[in-house]
Amino acid sequence: MKQGPVLYEGKAKIVSQGETGRLIHYFKDSATAFNAQKKAEFPGKGALNLAISEVVFKALTAAQIPHHFIQRLDERSFESMSLQMIPAEVVVRNRVAGSLAQRLQEPEGALLSIPVVEFFLKNDAKGDPLVSEDILVAFYAQRQEDLQECRRLSLAVNQAVRPLFAAAQLELVDFKLEFGRDDEGRLFVADEFSPDTCRLWDVSTGEKFDKDRFRRDQGDLLEGYREVLKRLSQQ
Amino acid sequence: MKQGPVLYEGKAKIVSQGETGRLIHYFKDSATAFNAQKKAEFPGKGALNLAISEVVFKALTAAQIPHHFIQRLDERSFESMSLQMIPAEVVVRNRVAGSLAQRLQEPEGALLSIPVVEFFLKNDAKGDPLVSEDILVAFYAQRQEDLQECRRLSLAVNQAVRPLFAAAQLELVDFKLEFGRDDEGRLFVADEFSPDTCRLWDVSTGEKFDKDRFRRDQGDLLEGYREVLKRLSQQ
Repeated sequence: MKQGPVLYEGKAKIVSQGETGRLIHYFKDSATAFNAQKKAEFPGKGALNLAISEVVFKALTAAQIPHHFIQRLDERSFESMSLQMIPAEVVVRNRVAGSLAQRLQEPEGALLSIPVVEFFLKNDAKGDPLVSEDILVAFYAQRQEDLQECRRLSLAVNQAVRPLFAAAQLELVDFKLEFGRDDEGRLFVADEFSPDTCRLWDVSTGEKFDKDRFRRDQGDLLEGYREVLKRLSQQ
Repeated sequence: MKQGPVLYEGKAKIVSQGETGRLIHYFKDSATAFNAQKKAEFPGKGALNLAISEVVFKALTAAQIPHHFIQRLDERSFESMSLQMIPAEVVVRNRVAGSLAQRLQEPEGALLSIPVVEFFLKNDAKGDPLVSEDILVAFYAQRQEDLQECRRLSLAVNQAVRPLFAAAQLELVDFKLEFGRDDEGRLFVADEFSPDTCRLWDVSTGEKFDKDRFRRDQGDLLEGYREVLKRLSQQ
């Protein structure tokens, strides 16, 4: 597998040029929170996140939801399509938690009667502000149709992935997606799907198995991620 | 005109029960900003805001946009329909300004290529947080169709009112609306439309004629409001 120059290094991944039209994503062991103000290393986290993401991407394939994942290369790397990224983080929520609980000043855990989709501008320097689709169109030159399709695909991902976690006795509270366009303008789910980018609560006890363990110093992060992978693998 | 008990006292208005199915709105002279952390009295502001609102409501009538304004009663009071209010503040923006400029960390005045509609939960105690239509449906029991209609009407108001101010050499930068439903479920533009609830900039000089004069200590508030009414009256 040809590995070209690093194109992008983020808080948890390194993306390099791969074969023509492809990228290589390498999962780091770093965890960051609060826009990287809190940082730590968790040896093995990268491999766990890749393994969990792979399970999810395979579920998306089964649900005929287009995504960028092509194949795993090794314990920490996978090959993907090379896409023109939409500069947004799309968050789907089934319960009130995290920044939404803060914004509404409501307790975490309140049920939402329908899944909620929120768009955030992907811009660390500006603190990833909450934006509407309107603002992404009016100020960030995005196409209305693309954002509608992102919304539709996000809800489809929710429908496809919730049962997968539910079968593992985990409730999918919320998750973040990113999207990219290929040369023909088709949209694909991109980035990763891991406990770094979603909230997973035990359906019986409410125990958290996601990055909130790190954000809030609630238990061993790796133990949580290992448990998620173990439960998914038993399905 | 029968005036019944006070139903609601807000930062800038007092609403009382009127004849059956009607309300009486009384405009106070108080100005508040930053969720009432900054306060002052401006003798005559209430009358100016009513006079400006009346001009706008008449323009909405001409544009066949349903609204709650029935008639002016005196210098500071008007009679309206009594509606079931939607618990949201709907903001329409033609340029980046105010809280959007802060949120995006972008300079004020940048043009938006299409008008943007944003919903805020109407709840002072929670700081009027930004919410999507989804959240108003999923957590605040609003009907999707009503919010779509609020959005449609908000853009119609923008189209109807921008030319009115443009003819007065004033640019309508943004404004806030509220909506209510009658017994048959029809939606009406409610509340007021004044320099307390919109931004108006001189088209040539960019001088501000709205509540930002007070928020930012930029000039005499009453002088600004008087100039708005004078220019509108000369049309």
